[in-house]
Amino acid sequence: MSSSVAKARPASGEDTLIARYFKPLATDPGAFALDDDAAALKAAGDDIVVTTDAIVEGVHFLPDDPPDTLARKALRVNLSDIAAKGAMPTGFVLTLALRKVDEAWLGSFAAALGEDAGYYGCPLLGGDTVSTPGPVMISITAFGRVAPDRMVHRAGARAGDRIVVTGTIGDAALGLDVLKGGPVAAALADNIVAQQMLATRYRVPQPRNGLANAVRDFASSAMDVSDGLAGDLAKLCKASGVSARVNVADIPLSAPAAELLARDVIGVEAVVSGGDDYEILCTIPQDRFESFGRAAKAAAIPVTSIGAIVAGFAAPRFVDREGKEFPLQRLSYSHF
Amino acid sequence: MSSSVAKARPASGEDTLIARYFKPLATDPGAFALDDDAAALKAAGDDIVVTTDAIVEGVHFLPDDPPDTLARKALRVNLSDIAAKGAMPTGFVLTLALRKVDEAWLGSFAAALGEDAGYYGCPLLGGDTVSTPGPVMISITAFGRVAPDRMVHRAGARAGDRIVVTGTIGDAALGLDVLKGGPVAAALADNIVAQQMLATRYRVPQPRNGLANAVRDFASSAMDVSDGLAGDLAKLCKASGVSARVNVADIPLSAPAAELLARDVIGVEAVVSGGDDYEILCTIPQDRFESFGRAAKAAAIPVTSIGAIVAGFAAPRFVDREGKEFPLQRLSYSHF
Repeated sequence: MSSSVAKARPASGEDTLIARYFKPLATDPGAFALDDDAAALKAAGDDIVVTTDAIVEGVHFLPDDPPDTLARKALRVNLSDIAAKGAMPTGFVLTLALRKVDEAWLGSFAAALGEDAGYYGCPLLGGDTVSTPGPVMISITAFGRVAPDRMVHRAGARAGDRIVVTGTIGDAALGLDVLKGGPVAAALADNIVAQQMLATRYRVPQPRNGLANAVRDFASSAMDVSDGLAGDLAKLCKASGVSARVNVADIPLSAPAAELLARDVIGVEAVVSGGDDYEILCTIPQDRFESFGRAAKAAAIPVTSIGAIVAGFAAPRFVDREGKEFPLQRLSYSHF
Repeated sequence: MSSSVAKARPASGEDTLIARYFKPLATDPGAFALDDDAAALKAAGDDIVVTTDAIVEGVHFLPDDPPDTLARKALRVNLSDIAAKGAMPTGFVLTLALRKVDEAWLGSFAAALGEDAGYYGCPLLGGDTVSTPGPVMISITAFGRVAPDRMVHRAGARAGDRIVVTGTIGDAALGLDVLKGGPVAAALADNIVAQQMLATRYRVPQPRNGLANAVRDFASSAMDVSDGLAGDLAKLCKASGVSARVNVADIPLSAPAAELLARDVIGVEAVVSGGDDYEILCTIPQDRFESFGRAAKAAAIPVTSIGAIVAGFAAPRFVDREGKEFPLQRLSYSHF
């Protein structure tokens, strides 16, 4: 009764929409042009890294978010996981739950998805379109390839390792506040450019797939920052059986985030506990730090050392220049 | 912001539910006990067959369907695709969208899912639990393994091939009518056993994974019957560039379905256009038919020849004993 994207069906609305919007994205020979019930993925000796993330209207995105940004976000949050595991994207399957067929919405959604699939080398392999009386839901399972047993884990960080993040932290959560018309929007009322920059950071993550090989070759542990830096670092430390000390002043901030913090519009917590960064958080042993830095530079991806892994099982400490700890109430977003 | 089953998270409701209900299902070493952001699947030289199917409350299942049957159905509709492609199940990822955490519901759901995962050798590799204000949605992407380039396709049927189905056809659609209190329920008011049998066929498909190797070795084309025999056969013929002739009297029916047909409670259309059979439909070249039959017998899976592939591009014809065609208005279910 459910209809796979990979299933041809004579003369139905689903077939038409699949043929029109999604077949052009199925460029991999293993997708069989979406004319079969399943795809075939060739591992060619690699391990297949599998990750899945869903986004729900009203929970992970706003009902009036443009469909092209939803498509990009749905795919990119998965690409971000693949990058953080040191793997190369190789394809994805899509489950799309829709209330109705809106040609303009679908056209924009599929065009953007196809652009990203091409850009990141991650073609559509199959999927399922279903009708729902409820919110739109976009669920993607994405695949990456990595040499056998070379996937980078959360576990693996050791005392003395540097803690590194890519890009800047906290922008997306501020962007969500902008889109919701919250205090950040009010504080930036005269700065439309900053508002737009932050909103774009929320709507369209920039996964760091260019850094995957460097992560694979030099990181002792890694994950992407999706639920807030503080909470995600706590998970990495827990999995590795270590603790961490982060110098808050070293956390890389965008100009608007730094300004909002300086003006006391937001506190440190808004930056380190906000979600949706989709930057890479990894730990690099001291003796590989220089090589990692060179690889990151070659990939043109900014990386910043924000602290060090320390022995122990305590929650990571976020400290100021004088070593005084910032108390954090909320580590990260939780659904339930 | 979305929370992967594979992501540990300190002290949140999601973590607790993942640890309590889903971690016991992650028996494959590549699932890393759901403590990482991704799973690693080892292909060991095989092709990885990928299929995805979602079920939505109010669309694919009824709000009061028992959670254990939902778990089984969500996984089995995917296992059915893997079987029909000639592959062996090797694992799955789960996306679960829930309105709230209902411990009793989740306990029953996870226990049944774990039982099926064990029985079919298809462990949980990861997933994503998200909150939704709308209907419950269960989306599964399942993986199978098959020797390189041996996946069985929809395309491949040739004129002269026998058309074969497993089990009996049409029961699930009749079972849905029973559960909805429709004409079938009324006609079977005195036969609770038949009602329950049909309802169970709707709620808990029996995927034919035991036949996968026989399909791989002997079928020229195959798919599972999920949207109705008539429509699915039309898709197989279209993909293969052939037509078909089906002897309606040869379509295998359960005793209740045969009785309902004999009593004119239902017509042939209800049987061949109903969905949710999850039987295998395949085509077997004449010279392999005996070997296929032996393999099916060894697997204790009933198979029935219902007609033959014929040359041409016309829609498949469903004929009675005199060769007179049954006109079919509706081939299969469509969402839009």
